[in-house]
Amino acid sequence: MKKAPTSYDYDLIVIGCGPAGQRAAIQAAKIRKRVAIIDSREVVGGVCVNTGTIPSKSFKEAVLFLTGIRQRNIYGAGFRVKTDIQMADLTLRCNHVMQVEIETIKNQLQRNRVDTLYGHAAFVGPHTVEIVSSAGTTRKSAERFVVAVGARPYRPPNVEFNGSSIFDSDDVLNLKKLPRDLTVVGGGVIGTEYASMFAALGVNVTMVDQRKRLLGFVDEELIDCFHYQMRSMGVQLRLGEEVASCKSREDGQVVTVLKSGKVIVSDCVLYSAGRVSATNDLGLDKLGLVADERGKLAVNDNFQTEVSHVYAAGDVIGFPALASTSARQGRLATCHAFGIEEQSMDVPLPFGIYAIPEISYVGRNEDELTREGVPYESGIARYREIARGQLLGDVNGMLKVLFHRESGEVLGVHIIGEYATELIHIGQAVMALKGGLNYLKDAVFNYPTLAECYKVAALDGYNKLRK
Amino acid sequence: MKKAPTSYDYDLIVIGCGPAGQRAAIQAAKIRKRVAIIDSREVVGGVCVNTGTIPSKSFKEAVLFLTGIRQRNIYGAGFRVKTDIQMADLTLRCNHVMQVEIETIKNQLQRNRVDTLYGHAAFVGPHTVEIVSSAGTTRKSAERFVVAVGARPYRPPNVEFNGSSIFDSDDVLNLKKLPRDLTVVGGGVIGTEYASMFAALGVNVTMVDQRKRLLGFVDEELIDCFHYQMRSMGVQLRLGEEVASCKSREDGQVVTVLKSGKVIVSDCVLYSAGRVSATNDLGLDKLGLVADERGKLAVNDNFQTEVSHVYAAGDVIGFPALASTSARQGRLATCHAFGIEEQSMDVPLPFGIYAIPEISYVGRNEDELTREGVPYESGIARYREIARGQLLGDVNGMLKVLFHRESGEVLGVHIIGEYATELIHIGQAVMALKGGLNYLKDAVFNYPTLAECYKVAALDGYNKLRK
Repeated sequence: MKKAPTSYDYDLIVIGCGPAGQRAAIQAAKIRKRVAIIDSREVVGGVCVNTGTIPSKSFKEAVLFLTGIRQRNIYGAGFRVKTDIQMADLTLRCNHVMQVEIETIKNQLQRNRVDTLYGHAAFVGPHTVEIVSSAGTTRKSAERFVVAVGARPYRPPNVEFNGSSIFDSDDVLNLKKLPRDLTVVGGGVIGTEYASMFAALGVNVTMVDQRKRLLGFVDEELIDCFHYQMRSMGVQLRLGEEVASCKSREDGQVVTVLKSGKVIVSDCVLYSAGRVSATNDLGLDKLGLVADERGKLAVNDNFQTEVSHVYAAGDVIGFPALASTSARQGRLATCHAFGIEEQSMDVPLPFGIYAIPEISYVGRNEDELTREGVPYESGIARYREIARGQLLGDVNGMLKVLFHRESGEVLGVHIIGEYATELIHIGQAVMALKGGLNYLKDAVFNYPTLAECYKVAALDGYNKLRK
Repeated sequence: MKKAPTSYDYDLIVIGCGPAGQRAAIQAAKIRKRVAIIDSREVVGGVCVNTGTIPSKSFKEAVLFLTGIRQRNIYGAGFRVKTDIQMADLTLRCNHVMQVEIETIKNQLQRNRVDTLYGHAAFVGPHTVEIVSSAGTTRKSAERFVVAVGARPYRPPNVEFNGSSIFDSDDVLNLKKLPRDLTVVGGGVIGTEYASMFAALGVNVTMVDQRKRLLGFVDEELIDCFHYQMRSMGVQLRLGEEVASCKSREDGQVVTVLKSGKVIVSDCVLYSAGRVSATNDLGLDKLGLVADERGKLAVNDNFQTEVSHVYAAGDVIGFPALASTSARQGRLATCHAFGIEEQSMDVPLPFGIYAIPEISYVGRNEDELTREGVPYESGIARYREIARGQLLGDVNGMLKVLFHRESGEVLGVHIIGEYATELIHIGQAVMALKGGLNYLKDAVFNYPTLAECYKVAALDGYNKLRK
């Protein structure tokens, strides 16, 4: 570390070591700032690596593979890779992947000479944090801060969490054995992902959400398709319903009572309705900052809080709370903090939901375009019309391109099906680089690929225009 | 069909119903030409659907899945989905996918009012073909022709083919049972794909090729990586070697003698060195056309043969002989034949090799750029550094971006690993639409995806420039 030219210990202290914090710290290190990153977990990676993204995606890969769910179109509905799947089979690869990710992050922080401090950090003054760990208490000061402390599951008082039969998403992978039936409360990203995975495993899943559809921000046609596929896997959807109470019965079963009077009895309940930003013991009062009722910090377009030298990025500021977007926010916060001109291109942000099936999109959906009065048309390709869709056994997948009727500009791409999260990046590049429908119509795609859906969808769109 | 305004039966006759022929016919139908397509197989789809692309890709999906080869990094080297894999398990899905593809093509031809004629077609005059089938003999005339008769495996006289232990790629999936050992002669696309699949199945594979490396047109670094992975699966590579003779011994074993004197004894030999265009009984003499010694027809940039109203497209004209490029050639041939201005964008063509692992590239490789004196730099991402690479268990995959040192223009993308054939299309779009390295550096990718390799590779490239 270079000697401090100012009276502060660091140019930047980053609190929280998830994707937002990491990128904020590394960006600062790249421009040779003195940086420290503090993590309360005593391990890098944040929720993303340790309890959220990576564990759930690892679980999903294991589910897809061990159930052979995609293969059932080929080998028959009774096909299983493993007939008696245990939780241990499903979490086996998880620790391995987590360890690799943690080592990768550690290595990257070290290589960039970011100081990593472990312990719980709280502001004790505008430029000073106190860090409490098992090793003791220290204070560190910095000119600027990025708060990237993340969020944790919200736990309402009418749900009697016990960590074993009534639990939140942090605990779900600690289940000792697979339940026969599972109630999932909350149809957001996390609830939906887990509900689909357990359904694929053959667990009887009931989903409850107060809205009329799951994943409210996703294109309606895709969600209709998703509802259909969830129900095909045996999921019972209780939409437009609210939970009145949720408690464990003497025989160990969990009773969830809905405000409509319905009662759901199941082995377990995963409560996953909302998250709370982890700001409650951060000493925000010492900065004169106030978080909202869910702990969220408000920021401006530069990710600056009302205290101009304190930035916030990632889950702590709320939607979309995805690893990819959080990483970008962290980087942009640092760039603004140190006056780096961000010459980055204006690339539309992708959204990825790792359910079974995957959902991913970029740009606007049909509702949004209709509200804005944009004269658009759509082109659709179904996986089942595509050789690779048949080869993979995903016959329900679809890709939809929304484009401007006159200019052919691509306004949005919406995909549900295998590899949606990968495929979306072709559409993203075409949107960002103004390729338009012409590009997709004329490009030659490897055969057989799912990428061919882009061409089929573009031709479908053209044919609609011709009429 | 509309009434003929000329004295010919059709405006266009297409001979051969593979990807090139289909696209040629449909393109003509779209501009309301009277079109017929003739196929000697009495079934649409050509080699692509019936004996080549689709069957081999279907075989590959089954191999990947049933061997669980990618899962061995997670579940251990001894892991198998099915311990006693039979040929029947591997070809089970093949017929299903073929049938779906055939129906799709038939449907498309019918919808576009293309007449489909079955039988063997040969020219009997410059504008007339005679079609011989079990139903009888007819003659049809047309103003223009597209010859898309494809190719078949080359069978040299020093190899004693018997269809059971010494066979070519058309027969490989008719094997009654999996051999214990297999010699593959020819390191082109087909030989390499099958060699890798059988190796993944645990068959002892020996590959013979007269060149010093497999897939000579692919970037050298990728091929080094591919050689390494093939050898890791137990493949013995005999490169720079030529076959002197190959014959069946009395005990049923096949003895392959190399010109260097080496002898390889194996259960079976797949001979896959070159293909011959299926032009020998096409009546080319009636047109005054002469094919080369491998039956190939020469064409100009518009896919026109020396007889200006006769076009040729697809495998019959040789390299690259991929379904994707053949389809494009067929379409372009028709466009030129009827004077349609092809306003299609100049999109670089992708190459896809469906081996285990997959290989795909677009643009130029390092050898080509070096020969041309282009000052390029490379950026590399390895799947094992990427969360999804770890999740998928592919730790050997890599993605390489070649870009111009000064302009940042992307000159080529080269991928080896899972989903390479899909991922390449992100790079293809960026190349075609001039996104450059900046785009890849700045884009936000879903996490975790293999698509993130693009960002990691771009950052790697930038860091090299900075030095």
